[in-house]
Amino acid sequence: MQTIFSKIIEGDIPCHKVYEDEHVLAFLDVSPLSNGHTLVIPKQCVASLHELSDDSAAALGIALVKISKAILKVTGATAYNVLQNNGKIAHQAVFHVHFHIIPTNTMDDGLVMDWSPKELSGGEKLAKEIQEAI
Amino acid sequence: MQTIFSKIIEGDIPCHKVYEDEHVLAFLDVSPLSNGHTLVIPKQCVASLHELSDDSAAALGIALVKISKAILKVTGATAYNVLQNNGKIAHQAVFHVHFHIIPTNTMDDGLVMDWSPKELSGGEKLAKEIQEAI
Repeated sequence: MQTIFSKIIEGDIPCHKVYEDEHVLAFLDVSPLSNGHTLVIPKQCVASLHELSDDSAAALGIALVKISKAILKVTGATAYNVLQNNGKIAHQAVFHVHFHIIPTNTMDDGLVMDWSPKELSGGEKLAKEIQEAI
Repeated sequence: MQTIFSKIIEGDIPCHKVYEDEHVLAFLDVSPLSNGHTLVIPKQCVASLHELSDDSAAALGIALVKISKAILKVTGATAYNVLQNNGKIAHQAVFHVHFHIIPTNTMDDGLVMDWSPKELSGGEKLAKEIQEAI
């Protein structure tokens, strides 16, 4: 599917590029949550993480490490969140896989979350089912 | 550094395991945000993503894809967030790298975020600086 990100990969839409290799492109988010907020995307055009090839997934893992290190160095941030949303109700807005790297220096900057955990029940059965489905 | 996660890797603390390979271990979060909330961790004992080896990072990327697919299949969730926090002010609680996979079926379940973007300024200079720091 054509999205704004596939058009950026093809060079039809410009971006502030920070990194590129065979499988991965990374550029600054134009609507950042903080200074240095970067998007890291596969060149493979799929909407969700679970659709990625092993090559894309491995390259993304390695790129996230490299790029995070450089963002900390340049922005002086001491902390950061890496976030990747899949599906509209999980707040995905562009339907091409993308990881956000969101640096932060204060509790008020960057990614703000409301963390309301529950208690785990039926964990043994659920873990077994997921294990068998892999 | 010894953490609760390194003790889980060593088998000193039990977990509801969903996946394991040479570099990666995954298990259910005992304080889940939703049914199927899973933690995916490297066996390499480092606190932050940018400290990971290429081998760990690549293996994590591939494992995230496999495990996400299985979680969707088993829980019936249609959407999910992948989140990885680095540093106390970025809400990291255990100082061993961990990715959360948080499935969701509704806007009220799973990961709740307050997304307040700014406008990007000075993007060209910043992108160049990060590019040169990689």
